[in-house]
Amino acid sequence: MNIDVHGQNRRRPTIESVPRDGNQPRHALPEPLHPPEAERRLRRQRLACAFRLFGRYGYEVGLAGHFTARDPILTDHFWVNPLGMAYGTIRASDLLLVNPAGDVVQGEGMVNLSGVPYHDAIQQARPEAVGIAHAHSFHAKVWSSLARVLDPITADAAFFHDDQVVFNPRRAAGKTYEQDRASVVAQAVAALGKRFIMFENAAAGQLMAEAVGGVVVPPTPGKTADARAKAEIGAWLSFLPLWDKMVREEPDLLD
Amino acid sequence: MNIDVHGQNRRRPTIESVPRDGNQPRHALPEPLHPPEAERRLRRQRLACAFRLFGRYGYEVGLAGHFTARDPILTDHFWVNPLGMAYGTIRASDLLLVNPAGDVVQGEGMVNLSGVPYHDAIQQARPEAVGIAHAHSFHAKVWSSLARVLDPITADAAFFHDDQVVFNPRRAAGKTYEQDRASVVAQAVAALGKRFIMFENAAAGQLMAEAVGGVVVPPTPGKTADARAKAEIGAWLSFLPLWDKMVREEPDLLD
Amino acid sequence: MNIDVHGQNRRRPTIESVPRDGNQPRHALPEPLHPPEAERRLRRQRLACAFRLFGRYGYEVGLAGHFTARDPILTDHFWVNPLGMAYGTIRASDLLLVNPAGDVVQGEGMVNLSGVPYHDAIQQARPEAVGIAHAHSFHAKVWSSLARVLDPITADAAFFHDDQVVFNPRRAAGKTYEQDRASVVAQAVAALGKRFIMFENAAAGQLMAEAVGGVVVPPTPGKTADARAKAEIGAWLSFLPLWDKMVREEPDLLD
Amino acid sequence: MNIDVHGQNRRRPTIESVPRDGNQPRHALPEPLHPPEAERRLRRQRLACAFRLFGRYGYEVGLAGHFTARDPILTDHFWVNPLGMAYGTIRASDLLLVNPAGDVVQGEGMVNLSGVPYHDAIQQARPEAVGIAHAHSFHAKVWSSLARVLDPITADAAFFHDDQVVFNPRRAAGKTYEQDRASVVAQAVAALGKRFIMFENAAAGQLMAEAVGGVVVPPTPGKTADARAKAEIGAWLSFLPLWDKMVREEPDLLD
Repeated sequence: MNIDVHGQNRRRPTIESVPRDGNQPRHALPEPLHPPEAERRLRRQRLACAFRLFGRYGYEVGLAGHFTARDPILTDHFWVNPLGMAYGTIRASDLLLVNPAGDVVQGEGMVNLSGVPYHDAIQQARPEAVGIAHAHSFHAKVWSSLARVLDPITADAAFFHDDQVVFNPRRAAGKTYEQDRASVVAQAVAALGKRFIMFENAAAGQLMAEAVGGVVVPPTPGKTADARAKAEIGAWLSFLPLWDKMVREEPDLLD
Repeated sequence: MNIDVHGQNRRRPTIESVPRDGNQPRHALPEPLHPPEAERRLRRQRLACAFRLFGRYGYEVGLAGHFTARDPILTDHFWVNPLGMAYGTIRASDLLLVNPAGDVVQGEGMVNLSGVPYHDAIQQARPEAVGIAHAHSFHAKVWSSLARVLDPITADAAFFHDDQVVFNPRRAAGKTYEQDRASVVAQAVAALGKRFIMFENAAAGQLMAEAVGGVVVPPTPGKTADARAKAEIGAWLSFLPLWDKMVREEPDLLD
Repeated sequence: MNIDVHGQNRRRPTIESVPRDGNQPRHALPEPLHPPEAERRLRRQRLACAFRLFGRYGYEVGLAGHFTARDPILTDHFWVNPLGMAYGTIRASDLLLVNPAGDVVQGEGMVNLSGVPYHDAIQQARPEAVGIAHAHSFHAKVWSSLARVLDPITADAAFFHDDQVVFNPRRAAGKTYEQDRASVVAQAVAALGKRFIMFENAAAGQLMAEAVGGVVVPPTPGKTADARAKAEIGAWLSFLPLWDKMVREEPDLLD
Repeated sequence: MNIDVHGQNRRRPTIESVPRDGNQPRHALPEPLHPPEAERRLRRQRLACAFRLFGRYGYEVGLAGHFTARDPILTDHFWVNPLGMAYGTIRASDLLLVNPAGDVVQGEGMVNLSGVPYHDAIQQARPEAVGIAHAHSFHAKVWSSLARVLDPITADAAFFHDDQVVFNPRRAAGKTYEQDRASVVAQAVAALGKRFIMFENAAAGQLMAEAVGGVVVPPTPGKTADARAKAEIGAWLSFLPLWDKMVREEPDLLD
């Protein structure tokens, strides 16, 4: 596999960069594609781009929401958004590097400490995970109030088929208000950005379809490892037109 | 507690400004944080900012809607929008200072007199209240047609749990059309702006979820005084990224 | 009554211009408020402004939709949009003056002839009517598929209480597709613009509320002549902030 | 019939260009209206314009979606969008000319090969078809999850009455996820663009109406050949204001 994308100068992926058969092993994507410093820079830029997109799409709710990218050098550290900065203004250089204890070791600002344990636990449990997004976007939180996983009724939803859980740690402990969010995990920051958007759209679609009734859920087998890898790569590729658009329209996100 | 925010020059709250334990007494926030003249100026600017946001979000319906800020010097007076001026064009200097009788004592323009008694009554009954918003935003008015309070099915809605009433004074008097609005009260203009947005979003969420059916309402205890104070502070903090964004994009609101 | 509004130079209505008791006779508004040539110019500008607004709000569907303003000099003629010109680009000087037979007697362009008989019939049957809007805006047409009048569940909808009919002339003749539109009539072009927006919003509100169920329809008496006049004036006044906004942002509409 | 439209210089269609009786034979539109090279250029520009519109309307979902225009010179070839280029940035010169085997014979970039057989099959089966659109726009895909054709409850939906099939080739073969898209065919690229928008809007309308219930489906006879031709011409004409708007706002699409 030869995946190489040169960000802001690229007009479209070259033919070589497209996996034609989809049988990439699952651990392929997170292998650093660039020298460590360049990979770090790209991950921060991709994360800043995801924030800008999420801001445009209205996924920002007050101070809530944190998206992280695993650092490629200090691999138990992650980059995260500073609390209180509007998504639509975040530049790569505004992101904070945080250690597993939640301390900011690079950058200036506060971190939403409530999010650190979740991110840290997922980063440790899934070493292939590079990006984690956790937010209160509208349709995802409305869907969450039904406490169900999405059915594979659209291509967006099928993407998450056999790959979702209803997660509610605090409710088990007698606390409340915890079911209204989506957390999405991916093996690349670009894939993460797209997966989050797909989840939000899939939730919107199923909510609308079920308000009518009569939804046909096609019988759908579980996902093979190949299908999972293909979905991951598809998300990664699908992020690229959004990246191009944002870098063109808001180049300061790269700073 | 040391909350100090310097408006337009701030890029993000400093670490010191964040209450970490949430156990602030309820009367803490409205204590003037600045010298009276500076506090007055800030309240007017915050109110102008809220109007700009509400205009962007489509909460303006013709001439309807009035949001007020208690004056920190003449504490039974309040600042309000002039009738007939589009929300999106309001600057701090366009706001009118109104006495309890509804007379304009500073500024030039008309006041929607129908709103004065409500604001005055709330300002008197709740001396800690600084901001009051009353509007006909879309989802809040649609929700109001069901004559129910919101259930705590999302974090937005949980914010209002144990803190809502269905208010319909004129219907009791045999008049009509009075249930279709939301009134929101807060201890700071910034908190007010955010609370109103949260109410609108929470109403939208519950409408969408209930159109599907099967909503899980988590068992939720009443709010303690601490929880109320924490919610107030959370709303106040959550307004700040919106303030930053608006001041950057439309600095004339501060004039 | 002394209603005088000077369009583009006005920042807000003066206090004198607000009717405080609402007991204006029904025929008051359409009396020309200006010398005939000035009134003609204002009506064309108001109509152009309404088109710009409707374009922004997405009420334009292909070539469909025509809004007319009765001419104050040739009172059986009306001004209408040229077929095929995008709403968002219409200037006052693009409008066409049409006689009762549908001939264009001033201006250059085509008229959607299918609309002429409806407008002409309404203009003749209701001599006080100045503006008529007929369009396929989204929520109005979806609502129309239910073949019901709106219930007074919000202030927007209450505005149309006791003042609506389900109109379907062609279906009676065995034709189809005719129920999916809204026609709105008003005594001033400004009032027309606002009434159309209110109808669209009211339809959106009732559709959303009824998808949930449990809507409370307040018992509502029929409208008195005073209430009708007050509603008309309210619509007219409520249009003014929109006019101000559009004239400021797109001054070429006045040309 | 004398249909001649001069693209970017036109302010509105001339009176001569409007078919008044609608009884154009079905094969009329795709006859080249211009010399072959000019027709080729116009089709590419129209296709680029459709992509820009679809991008604005949010019909772009990752890398999915391909719209094609039959080439007027090599009539078994078609023009298509390059994979991975955001719709909103496509210029006429970015489109790729593809032969029936899926090879790019003019232009530089990748083609979504999964789409080629569908387009090729339709282009061969319907020699009068010039434009084919296939996308995952939101309301069309949500509607598709119900596996039904649209009912003629609005003018948009009536447009497709007696002219739709539920298409699901892969599900028959035991595969899944294939019902969530709309494919639309038309005899001109302009008509295609408008038909796709109408389908999306009609799906949105029926979803909303059925969530309420009580929809009145008017008894509607099948379409005559005349009615089909009239609908095609109507779609073509209705695209023109959108074309004008886009060419004015984003003239680089013509390059």
